[in-house]
Amino acid sequence: MTNYDVIIIGGSAAGVTAAITARKYYPDKSILLVRDEELVPIPCGIPYVYGTVLDPMKNLIPVNNMMTASKIEMVIESVVKINREFHLIFTESDQSFHYEKLVIATGSNPIIPKIEGIQLKNVFSIKKNTIYLKEIQTQISNSKKIVIIGAGFIGAEMAEECKKFNPEIEINVFEMQDHPLKFVYDTDLCILAEKALVDQGINLHMNENVVKIIGNEFVEAVETASKKRVEADMVILGIGATPNTKLAHSSGLELGPMHGILVNRYMQTIDESIFACGDCADKVSFFDCKPSGLRLASIATMEARIVGANLFDVRRTNYGVVGCFSTVLNHKAFAGAGLTVASATEKGFQICVGEAESVNRHPGIMPGGDLLKVKLVFERSTGRILGGQAYGALSAGELINAISAFVSAKMTAEAIATFQAGTHPALTASPIAYQLVNAAENAIIKMHH
Amino acid sequence: MTNYDVIIIGGSAAGVTAAITARKYYPDKSILLVRDEELVPIPCGIPYVYGTVLDPMKNLIPVNNMMTASKIEMVIESVVKINREFHLIFTESDQSFHYEKLVIATGSNPIIPKIEGIQLKNVFSIKKNTIYLKEIQTQISNSKKIVIIGAGFIGAEMAEECKKFNPEIEINVFEMQDHPLKFVYDTDLCILAEKALVDQGINLHMNENVVKIIGNEFVEAVETASKKRVEADMVILGIGATPNTKLAHSSGLELGPMHGILVNRYMQTIDESIFACGDCADKVSFFDCKPSGLRLASIATMEARIVGANLFDVRRTNYGVVGCFSTVLNHKAFAGAGLTVASATEKGFQICVGEAESVNRHPGIMPGGDLLKVKLVFERSTGRILGGQAYGALSAGELINAISAFVSAKMTAEAIATFQAGTHPALTASPIAYQLVNAAENAIIKMHH
Repeated sequence: MTNYDVIIIGGSAAGVTAAITARKYYPDKSILLVRDEELVPIPCGIPYVYGTVLDPMKNLIPVNNMMTASKIEMVIESVVKINREFHLIFTESDQSFHYEKLVIATGSNPIIPKIEGIQLKNVFSIKKNTIYLKEIQTQISNSKKIVIIGAGFIGAEMAEECKKFNPEIEINVFEMQDHPLKFVYDTDLCILAEKALVDQGINLHMNENVVKIIGNEFVEAVETASKKRVEADMVILGIGATPNTKLAHSSGLELGPMHGILVNRYMQTIDESIFACGDCADKVSFFDCKPSGLRLASIATMEARIVGANLFDVRRTNYGVVGCFSTVLNHKAFAGAGLTVASATEKGFQICVGEAESVNRHPGIMPGGDLLKVKLVFERSTGRILGGQAYGALSAGELINAISAFVSAKMTAEAIATFQAGTHPALTASPIAYQLVNAAENAIIKMHH
Repeated sequence: MTNYDVIIIGGSAAGVTAAITARKYYPDKSILLVRDEELVPIPCGIPYVYGTVLDPMKNLIPVNNMMTASKIEMVIESVVKINREFHLIFTESDQSFHYEKLVIATGSNPIIPKIEGIQLKNVFSIKKNTIYLKEIQTQISNSKKIVIIGAGFIGAEMAEECKKFNPEIEINVFEMQDHPLKFVYDTDLCILAEKALVDQGINLHMNENVVKIIGNEFVEAVETASKKRVEADMVILGIGATPNTKLAHSSGLELGPMHGILVNRYMQTIDESIFACGDCADKVSFFDCKPSGLRLASIATMEARIVGANLFDVRRTNYGVVGCFSTVLNHKAFAGAGLTVASATEKGFQICVGEAESVNRHPGIMPGGDLLKVKLVFERSTGRILGGQAYGALSAGELINAISAFVSAKMTAEAIATFQAGTHPALTASPIAYQLVNAAENAIIKMHH
């Protein structure tokens, strides 16, 4: 048995970031990172393995290098048990390690729906396991007809990448909602996302619930509740993930309303020697402290930075999930931060929306120019920003982070309308047309009426 | 004589934005915009006319369309006199117009140094006049040896564009400072800018003061204080601009310490019926309220949005100049917001700096990946952000606006280190490596020591 000041269980975005942060704040503590995978895929990069990067081995978090650089020890094994009374963890091979502080960052598992035929061969979920991801790649290269269940980020990105890998593959995407990406963007953006997918020759089946996978040994077709039947030689599930709380739960740690490990604002579980962060931890919304089901790598790393700093002294507070994300579909960025019109309304906010669009160059004929649309959502009574969305030019990928900054700082439409944006002919819209400022101004004018 | 509720003098970024904003806030007021140029160049776009856009007529603010859309009347004439007592302006052709509120947005004029030979033919400054800009273009196409005086934004961008237009042209840039862009970036970035220019075959002469332009009718050479002499068949001046306050000054309006029109925080001059905004208006720093010499289109439009809203009711306050800007040299972005290490130190702040760099993709082999470096400057005692700089990937053009948002909102290093950035394989660094968050974290760690 070996003693460590800090043990971190989990080697993906949250675990790695918690370890690096812990090292920065506590240079003299001994830190051990225990993970069950030798090779850790970059989670957000997984879809891009299939049409762009073309090798799961080129989509890895360089965990070993990072841990060595931060002087953090490593063990590659599954942890099977935590003894909270004696501050011990036990691995599969029955090694035990003593901790003073423990961090659980065990992530999430893809949801596998309990439908007929789910166990058939060539039905895949997106597991963060390199060998499994390689099997998916092999199967894609052998497939002629792929069905994807779910049109969230993973479903939409996988559809595009499969098509990019081989335009001859027939891709059918099934989604229970009426549009792709329904839970993260407002309908106007979802419709553009839908068009982006359809324009690439992807078949979308909206408002459809796959209830049965048909086949003998191998998948042959799927069938929906409406009795639509589509042939398939491969099925990819992209319907979300659930917190991996098995270890925590079996150790008596309490779970929260979203089925993640319950943590307080300092990321401590009900056992104050044990912290949790990332997909396995329960979350609340930045806006109303109510449970949030958002799980993103950027949230995981934010939480991990809080955990790493708080291990021996409480220094940081988690103010909850803003939610900031982006994707690219058919060469157009789709980005969002904070609440949409739909989610703000659902939370009971009286809102006011401002929009603005312009080419992201000035004059517009400067090379690389592309339309960039911005929509900002404000609380009507206070003018405080609740969220925003951006569509079009790829510069939206960083512009959305300015919106996330506005939201974090609870800036008002007034402050944003008179915020000083840097603009340049080769990089952005003109200062007259700059989208963030004009969207805020347009919202203010509406608030006055 | 015609009566208007609002008259705006000036048709560039400030005047146009003040007019549009006034229309939004005061839908029933009559508004007249008076400008002396039929065609208004996009000011920041001027250098790009010469190597990229290749026609001054394609770098115009669509003033007429914008004014028509906002139901704003226009007169194209120089204003020669203001009678403040009777609220009248007089034009060159002796037309007069009555105003209730007047906005002066007369911009700036390029500095023409009083050196020997400055009147020679083929010596040009950068005037915002399309016919003159066309003459510059004609001369560039006839030149073999161009001297540029000044290595600020205009000098550096003009040098690059002349070289892009015709790599055979010999370009010599003279600058009194030891590096290009010295007043806007810290030395590390200035050295990278220097390299970017030199790598394109541009000759830089730093620490050199051009004291004489030699020639008979036409320029033939320039000579520096150190007696360096370089041949030239064209000289372009890029040494800054001074506020165009002639009209305001002759009307008895007071000027400020930076020689611009003195305005209060609501952008009113000493005559409360008269507002000023843009390059012609004096400015103070956001950080210490001391006079600021920064003049940027993004500051002009910010001030114009305050003026437009405040005309009949005070609604907005100008908190001073943050300063946010970017440029591209040799395909790399150079961006800054707020104070540099040098300017913060000069203002007396005890500072702490954090840096981070990463490819703006994850994994780094995703297409379009480029290194993006970020440096953030914090006040040591409070952790409040004072400024930041970004270098490398063109996504810095919007990332710098997230930094400007942090500065505007007076966010602390703590808030930035735990801010939720949106990240995506095809658009940004990974959430583990994301530059803004890591630069803040690195500064915090330094503050602790």
